[in-house]
Amino acid sequence: MRYELYYWPTIQGRGEFVRLALEASNADYIDIARATGAGITAMMRLIGDSNRPPFAPPFLRAGKLLIGQSANILQYLGPRHGLAPKAEAGRLWAHQLQLTIADFVDEAHDTHHPIASSLYYHEQLPEAKRRTQHFLAERIPKYLSYFESVLNNNGSGYSIGRSLSYVDLSLFQIIAGLHYAFPKTMARSKRKYPRLIALHDRVAQRRAVAAYLASTRRIPFNENGVFRHYPELDA
Amino acid sequence: MRYELYYWPTIQGRGEFVRLALEASNADYIDIARATGAGITAMMRLIGDSNRPPFAPPFLRAGKLLIGQSANILQYLGPRHGLAPKAEAGRLWAHQLQLTIADFVDEAHDTHHPIASSLYYHEQLPEAKRRTQHFLAERIPKYLSYFESVLNNNGSGYSIGRSLSYVDLSLFQIIAGLHYAFPKTMARSKRKYPRLIALHDRVAQRRAVAAYLASTRRIPFNENGVFRHYPELDA
Repeated sequence: MRYELYYWPTIQGRGEFVRLALEASNADYIDIARATGAGITAMMRLIGDSNRPPFAPPFLRAGKLLIGQSANILQYLGPRHGLAPKAEAGRLWAHQLQLTIADFVDEAHDTHHPIASSLYYHEQLPEAKRRTQHFLAERIPKYLSYFESVLNNNGSGYSIGRSLSYVDLSLFQIIAGLHYAFPKTMARSKRKYPRLIALHDRVAQRRAVAAYLASTRRIPFNENGVFRHYPELDA
Repeated sequence: MRYELYYWPTIQGRGEFVRLALEASNADYIDIARATGAGITAMMRLIGDSNRPPFAPPFLRAGKLLIGQSANILQYLGPRHGLAPKAEAGRLWAHQLQLTIADFVDEAHDTHHPIASSLYYHEQLPEAKRRTQHFLAERIPKYLSYFESVLNNNGSGYSIGRSLSYVDLSLFQIIAGLHYAFPKTMARSKRKYPRLIALHDRVAQRRAVAAYLASTRRIPFNENGVFRHYPELDA
């Protein structure tokens, strides 16, 4: 079965957590909006036609299923592709961690859009500066310390069990995104999170992930995605 | 098995979505922080002692499992208590809707805390007014129209299948919360969402839910929770 991934074709965004899982497991998939000329139109038509429409991209077509919400897609893919435990306790724990990552991603997004997604960044700049100050001083330490302790408790170098999971791929992505968005802040603080940094580096070196990152399928970070580099915010 | 719910004892907050599911299904549970004098201390000690600590309340102890993230708790409870389909496609769809509700709840929270949770409301009042303006004009219509269409597509009066699910309980809660927080806005716009309003009323009249709502176990809405009534925001 070939999966169909529906997501915006020009950003990593929330779709990237799904792309990483598909790529790391060498799953057969097509990134619809990137692969076809009328990609976004096809994506929107599918939302309009579905009897169970997703609220927003990303969503994944898997046979008869149409699955929305990135964490939900990952909990579907995980056990099928060796990226999550098969037993219920492990699946719930992996998903719990992924939902906490999703919360962090929402907060990272709101650093540059604290007032409204419908406004441009420059229309909410003073608020963005103020929100980002708190994000860098309070929220990054709170979340990264938490995930550092998860790695420490587990002890294998991965977040769950003894092998790579979709949670590890997502942790790679948030560390990569934070380095892109806030290089000064991360340069100063990364020694506080040695296990997370080591995990990031280990994930990046895996054969399938390294091949993906070196390919044109990996869209570069840019200022339309979740993690944006605005030097004035990286105080 | 008696469930143990761990959540802040003085607010509905995100724990209320779990409380509603436990109450509506007459599940055997204890709301630890409300039932015991040293409730919050016990909650924090459990986080500190666990090898798989939740990031934040609510979390649920179910036998040997300790499950965090309200949507994750609900997907665990749902099929066990007749509040979600048992088959995978239905479970994924219910959870997808719940995650979309969780996104909406995050946005509702950020109307009064657009800059930082660590600041008081009055310390971010101008930003709260600006964010809420967009929330009322853009976000409430987008989300409620979506859920209205979910009810319309399904056609039974419930969001999934022909009987009550945890998604319906959560939709009840957001409609109740919006009415509390933004009574003027909701009075003006509720005729646009007849199916959601009817669902809210039907859920409130169910025997177990009505008994819960009339009891002291239902904490009243207040200005420490997610849905807060600040008249100056309800323009």
